[in-house]
Order: sequence, then C-alpha cells, then structure tokens
Amino acid sequence: MDKKTVGLSDTFKGKTTPKNFTKNPIIGTKFTIAISSAKGGVGKSTFATNFALALKSTGSKVGILDADIYGPSLPKMMSINEKPKSENGKSLVPIEQYGIQCMSIGFLVDEETPMIWRGPMVTSAIKTFTEKVLWNNLDFIIIDMPPGTGDTQLTFAQQIKVDGVIIVSTPQEIALLDVKRGIRMFDKLKVPILGLVDNMSFFESSDGKKHNIFGEGGVEKTAKEYKKKFLGKIPINIDLRIAADSGTPLFKKDQNHKISKIFEDFAKKIKESFL
Amino acid sequence: MDKKTVGLSDTFKGKTTPKNFTKNPIIGTKFTIAISSAKGGVGKSTFATNFALALKSTGSKVGILDADIYGPSLPKMMSINEKPKSENGKSLVPIEQYGIQCMSIGFLVDEETPMIWRGPMVTSAIKTFTEKVLWNNLDFIIIDMPPGTGDTQLTFAQQIKVDGVIIVSTPQEIALLDVKRGIRMFDKLKVPILGLVDNMSFFESSDGKKHNIFGEGGVEKTAKEYKKKFLGKIPINIDLRIAADSGTPLFKKDQNHKISKIFEDFAKKIKESFL
Repeated sequence: MDKKTVGLSDTFKGKTTPKNFTKNPIIGTKFTIAISSAKGGVGKSTFATNFALALKSTGSKVGILDADIYGPSLPKMMSINEKPKSENGKSLVPIEQYGIQCMSIGFLVDEETPMIWRGPMVTSAIKTFTEKVLWNNLDFIIIDMPPGTGDTQLTFAQQIKVDGVIIVSTPQEIALLDVKRGIRMFDKLKVPILGLVDNMSFFESSDGKKHNIFGEGGVEKTAKEYKKKFLGKIPINIDLRIAADSGTPLFKKDQNHKISKIFEDFAKKIKESFL
Repeated sequence: MDKKTVGLSDTFKGKTTPKNFTKNPIIGTKFTIAISSAKGGVGKSTFATNFALALKSTGSKVGILDADIYGPSLPKMMSINEKPKSENGKSLVPIEQYGIQCMSIGFLVDEETPMIWRGPMVTSAIKTFTEKVLWNNLDFIIIDMPPGTGDTQLTFAQQIKVDGVIIVSTPQEIALLDVKRGIRMFDKLKVPILGLVDNMSFFESSDGKKHNIFGEGGVEKTAKEYKKKFLGKIPINIDLRIAADSGTPLFKKDQNHKISKIFEDFAKKIKESFL
C-alpha cells in the first residue's frame, strides 16, 4: 500500500499487493471492453448501450454484460422483460435484443427487487456471468461496470482478460476525483485504459446558448495529467435520456442523430485500435 | 427471498432473511440520519453537506460521516486536508470544519488513492467509523451513504440505530429504478424513511426557460407509489455545483441564496419530526 496511507491501521495494510493471477478471456468472446468511471450517475449505461449498437453497426458481433449487481439498468434500457433460458440447468443463454447479446442480474429478478448482498455474493454472481453464460461467437463484449473500486472491479481485473477500459465521466471536479482513483486502480491492476470520455459535457438550450452545467474541460485535463487518451465529448441531450428511459437506445432509434454520430465515431476509433 | 426470483440458484437463496440484530446509536450522537439513493451521481454528498449546515443554522450540533469508502467526497467538499488525531492510538478525533464535525476515509489516505478493497474490508472500515470516532455531543449525525444495496447499507441497517433515511434522486426513470430498490431495501431492513427529495429537478436557463433535463415529476410519483413523504425539489443550479467543487458548500457561502433557503426548509421540516 501507498506510503502516504499512514492513517490506516495494520489490518488495512498490505492487502492490495498485486499477485499473479491467471486471466482468461470470457468464453465465446474475442475482446472484452469495460465501461467504467468509479463514480455512479455519469451515464455509463447509456454510453455502454449506444456504444455497443454503434460497434454492431460497423459489422461486429457484440454483447453487453451488465456487471452492476446493485443497480442493473440493462433490462430497462434494452426493453428486456424475459428470463434467460438454461440448456442444462448450469449455463445461461444470453438474451438477444436489437442484435446485441445481453445478460444482467436484472433478468433473473423482479425489476424492483434490491440485491441486498455482501461482497462475496457479488463476486459469485460476477463469476457466474463470466463463466456460465453461453456468449455466441462475439467480437466484442462490453462490460457495464458498477461504481466503486471493490469486489466487481477486483474480480474482473484478477480473473478476466480485460482488453481495455473506457472511462466515462462528467466534467465536475468532484466526479473527476473518483475518475482519478479509477485510473490509479486500473494502472495498479495492469488493466489497459483505452481513453476517457467527457459525458454530459454541456447543455445547449433552444436559444443556442451553451451551459457548462458540470464545469468545463476537466476530463481532457485529467486525461493529459495521467497520460491517457482523450476520446471526446458528448453533450447533455434530452433525446438521449428520453431514448434510454423508453427502452430503445438513441442509436437504435435514430442512427443519423448528431449524438448517434458521436457514438459511431467512438466505435470506429476503438475498433481500429483492436485491428 | 422474493418468490419472483426463480432465476437465482440455490446459493443465492435465503440469504436476506431478516435476523434480529442489536442496533446501537453511534456513541456521542443523539439522532442518525442517512442520506441515500442506491444510485450514484444524484447529488447525495452536495445534499448532505448543505443539509448539515442548514441543520446547524437552526441551532443543532451536527456531524457528517462520509460512509462512501470507494468514493469519499467530504475532504474536497469541506476543504479538509488534515489527518485526524488519535488520543490513544485506538480512537479517531473528528475534524471540525464550518462548525461541523467530520469523518471520512479520505482523511486517512491521499486524495487520489483508490481503496481497492473487497466487501469485508469495507465493513471493517464502517465499524471503525461508527465505533471508534469520538463524536462530541452531537444532536444529529448525517451519514453520506455510498450507492448500492451492499455491505455498507447492511452494516448500518443491522448494527446502528438509524433514525431515518432521506432518499435523494434525480427524476429520470432509470435513476428511479435504483431508488425503488433502495426503498424496498430499507423497508425490508426496517429502517424508517423520512422522505424523498427530487434533486437536479430542472434547469433554468438565463432566458427564464425551464428545461426538464432529467424528466419531470418522477420522484414525487415514486413517493406516492411507495407511500413515502415527498420532501420537495432542488433545481439544477450552477452556483451549487461551483460551491461544492470549491470546497465551501453554498449554504456556508451564501445563506440567503434561493437554494440555501430550500435546504433551510428541509432542515426545519426534518428537525420538527424529531422533536
């Protein structure tokens, strides 16, 4: 542990020393891309669904694994109300929607049921989702990560070959603090960071005026500070939020929307880096 | 567990049956109020700090415990850069700022150091903060809860006498889903809910036009649906965000600001319910 953590008791020391883990790819998939931020409420799931659809539009086979056990949003965002089938009682068949293979804890329980679970139960659920789901011949699996730097992040970093992380953040200072912690975690766990996205970057009102509701430029500055790639900005857009709430991601609803074009651009950039 | 959770394996069943726990008040405090939402990024910490200052302005002695181990924001929001003292190596003295007694994991480590911890470590940290901090004669301790329905929430619900929870949410559908899970969790764990707050309710641009960026009316509707009190709305306000980012909460900076008046109103309402 860091020398600066002098205030922590012995119990908390020496617990994060990197060990050697065997990292396996998720069976049935070629590349694993995690969408993360360490902070909640910055638009990770909206990003993940639209990004997955944009990747698909470039000709790739894509899946989404919703790794947010406490706050799954994939069922609502992709309008999925069915339970996954199991071929032999031990595996789970992903549910295909809009041409994307999907899996979420939200498919297994009633939408409003809280998962009141301690960490080891979460780890166990993540292992089920990465080892027992019959992903079918995917080029990319997109992992929608929960907030934090805990059990889920550790399980992925230690046991799964994660090919890259896209870090999404809003530009306010207090969110960037969590982003910095997230960058340090992935660097420490040796998971490559593909780049940072500035989400809810600004709001344009009908008079054409731009409002920097959450501040300006912070994400790009953070990318420079940590020598990571800055992938670009996505403005606050009411169409994007309405589409997410309605269960049809904006990219599916209107591929020519200016926001969809931004996702297409991200998808092409990221895909190139894997070819 | 709910009958609807047919998709879960036996391992996951029967783990959330309520047991009988001895719930103790936090030593040195009279009433414990948790600020929660189950979802991240909805403004819990901004709410917690301004609400604490508003409570103090009514003549109460107030403390804030930042229970977000993975994403502490109290050090930044309250401009605290010092480490807490310990009288005998076993206890921690809270740091007083703006007349509020404060404690956060962020006081013990460097600001950008991630806590890469599994659940049991988080539980252990929460126990330290609730049992080993020398809170001094507080009327109210405000707990800034992390997102999720996991270790921290369970530890508080099972071991601490929490007198009430204020649930903060933005009004978009996808956030409300997490709020509903949070309500069900607190109901199940028998923690009283004081009411719901609609945060980032709308944005008013300089031309006086209101923009329902995150939707409209959803929080009040959810309160009705679950028979909880609706406490009121807080609009998106750039002064509020700038103050939070600068380390002086808006209520401290300008007690007469229209947003500060809203917090004052919340504080009076909540305080009345405890007298």
